[in-house]
Amino acid sequence: MKTTRNFLKHLMLSIMMLAPMGLSAQWGRNPIKSPEVQKDGKITFRLFAPDAEKVELSGNWMPGWGTKVEMAANDTGLYVITIDPLPSEMYTYNYYVNGVKTNDPSNAIIVRDGVNNQSMFFAPGEVANLYETQDVPHGVLSKVWYPSPTLDKERRMYVYTPPGYAESNKDYPVFYLLHGAGGDEDAWTTLGREPYILDNLIAAGKAEPMIVVMTNGNAWSSAAPGEEPASDSNEQPDFSQMVRGGFEKSLINDVIPFIEKNYRALKDKDHRAIAGLSMGGMHTQNITNSNPGKFTYIGIMSMGIMNDPRWNNGYNEEEHKQQIAALKDSGVKLYWIGVGKEDFLFEGVTNLRKFYDDNGFDYIYRESTGGHTWTNWRIYLSEVAPLLFK
Amino acid sequence: MKTTRNFLKHLMLSIMMLAPMGLSAQWGRNPIKSPEVQKDGKITFRLFAPDAEKVELSGNWMPGWGTKVEMAANDTGLYVITIDPLPSEMYTYNYYVNGVKTNDPSNAIIVRDGVNNQSMFFAPGEVANLYETQDVPHGVLSKVWYPSPTLDKERRMYVYTPPGYAESNKDYPVFYLLHGAGGDEDAWTTLGREPYILDNLIAAGKAEPMIVVMTNGNAWSSAAPGEEPASDSNEQPDFSQMVRGGFEKSLINDVIPFIEKNYRALKDKDHRAIAGLSMGGMHTQNITNSNPGKFTYIGIMSMGIMNDPRWNNGYNEEEHKQQIAALKDSGVKLYWIGVGKEDFLFEGVTNLRKFYDDNGFDYIYRESTGGHTWTNWRIYLSEVAPLLFK
Repeated sequence: MKTTRNFLKHLMLSIMMLAPMGLSAQWGRNPIKSPEVQKDGKITFRLFAPDAEKVELSGNWMPGWGTKVEMAANDTGLYVITIDPLPSEMYTYNYYVNGVKTNDPSNAIIVRDGVNNQSMFFAPGEVANLYETQDVPHGVLSKVWYPSPTLDKERRMYVYTPPGYAESNKDYPVFYLLHGAGGDEDAWTTLGREPYILDNLIAAGKAEPMIVVMTNGNAWSSAAPGEEPASDSNEQPDFSQMVRGGFEKSLINDVIPFIEKNYRALKDKDHRAIAGLSMGGMHTQNITNSNPGKFTYIGIMSMGIMNDPRWNNGYNEEEHKQQIAALKDSGVKLYWIGVGKEDFLFEGVTNLRKFYDDNGFDYIYRESTGGHTWTNWRIYLSEVAPLLFK
Repeated sequence: MKTTRNFLKHLMLSIMMLAPMGLSAQWGRNPIKSPEVQKDGKITFRLFAPDAEKVELSGNWMPGWGTKVEMAANDTGLYVITIDPLPSEMYTYNYYVNGVKTNDPSNAIIVRDGVNNQSMFFAPGEVANLYETQDVPHGVLSKVWYPSPTLDKERRMYVYTPPGYAESNKDYPVFYLLHGAGGDEDAWTTLGREPYILDNLIAAGKAEPMIVVMTNGNAWSSAAPGEEPASDSNEQPDFSQMVRGGFEKSLINDVIPFIEKNYRALKDKDHRAIAGLSMGGMHTQNITNSNPGKFTYIGIMSMGIMNDPRWNNGYNEEEHKQQIAALKDSGVKLYWIGVGKEDFLFEGVTNLRKFYDDNGFDYIYRESTGGHTWTNWRIYLSEVAPLLFK
């Protein structure tokens, strides 16, 4: 009884403070819980939509692009669907209300993929454990602006310093981790769960403590949406810069010197790693092909050889042969290539491997299931990070 | 002609890389632009919803809670509304599609207020200039986990270090900035635009360079949604902790020692400031009333005297008198109180002022227009920060 009175008292207090913020509906009594992972692993999604005619659920666990399943309404207008248990993973989903994509208003957690905002949840288990916050020492994740004379902008990046960095005086190796087209510097920290993957791998003794630098690979922009100057956000993005090499130059000329000046970074090739996905895999190839001896740990995720004639990027096979010969001579310790069997770039990756095989260039190949997805890139990060600096 | 060919080539490249991520619709030709601030200042909102029957717009510039205006569809199913120019500010809005709240899928920028995700834009001008990224030196914003023995958790906070911090050896004053009920450690960095407000004030010579610490004031939780351990997020929040004083104790016993150990912080009362909004204004009062001589700069935003008998928080007027007498003796340099005329806590603030007047306790009073809103709290931050450490 006392507990009930106390509960009501505090509920009233909460509502007094919350009501004007429009939160009482969610924080008050009988909030709609969605998604709800049931004890048997089944997952229930709910949306209150009494005036909707059609409510659908679309999730990244469904086969094919844009697959939707219809939700059924009860007589109060609450649309509900319960799905069978999913393998442990981080999942994203949206509702479609009369055909319009919406987030789940009962789920605070949204992750952004480019301009695409999606609701997110974890299906508990081994994979989620690697991506979620655990009771282990945590690194510090910082949003840092740095000058880029190469691109004539102040630009933003994230710097992850590992647990113990602040308390120690030691120098750390640095891992440069690049996102794909459509993404920005936020991507590896949100969709990619980099801070938690590294915290968890380091705590388990599987990865060396390292600094991880996550840049913005869009040479025409300064920072993620909402963080860039108005002058930037009002401009039309200049996608042609994707293949002009500006970002690659700025990483070498601006980013690395900034990191090695402002952080306790080890400053030799054996303590620099670089990896990227999709466009970031292209950037990684461009950077390492042009700068042998800068990095000895290299990872290419979901990106093939860059010789598609439609790109008109000046691909020259002879030059490429010379570049990888120089890379080989520079003492590369890890050249890792990963791709999913269903990736639309799978053939390009096969061609890249053939080129390396034909030219006696060693690499580790990881072929996963699935396609060009963050599900794969998180797994690749969790597999590549343990191979670095060892 | 060559430009066109180049454009098409790069567009093709973009789409090749982007299509599998579902982004081509937005990044390709003829994307739907929304919101669009026109040259004459009018603002156009657009949503493609051919199967919807009713689409409404609700924005925080509209009078009253939950006000919506209906949008009109053209014959393709594009719903459009153009509104008159708004005063320069940061605005949030949602669409309602057949009554269901949605974000604007054409706008990447979402800010979260508790569980409430809202699309965001700036109406350009003087106020937006203070809140947006400018071409000025930027501080570093870090997500930091710290141990809280008081609350028996690892907890997360943000630490803003001012421009020049990394390059200098000097020690800095520290400003502890607390959010309200329903918020968490993210709030001041997103809705509150703290990093940009401070960058811009410091660049203009209006505020001293300072460290700003933004904690999570919810004693039952570790971190914002998506960042907390699974063990946390599965628990029902214990709102009763709002008035039990645990957070207040942890700020004194855990947060301040952590900051003063790990950052180059000045460690005396004249270089510590604290302010908070709503519940954070309650926390600020509790902390400063119980710890005279810890802070000499104090700000109470949108929070009154905490003697509402319904709260049953053990309010004791005699004790309060003694507390503010001790606070006065401790040499407070700034006691700032701000509230909007339409705030639902306005009367409580009036009562707090009367109590201070009756007991000879000096303060600065700032009465603004508006209510219990982030519009006010951003303005208050931009006015309070320049008064600190001077």
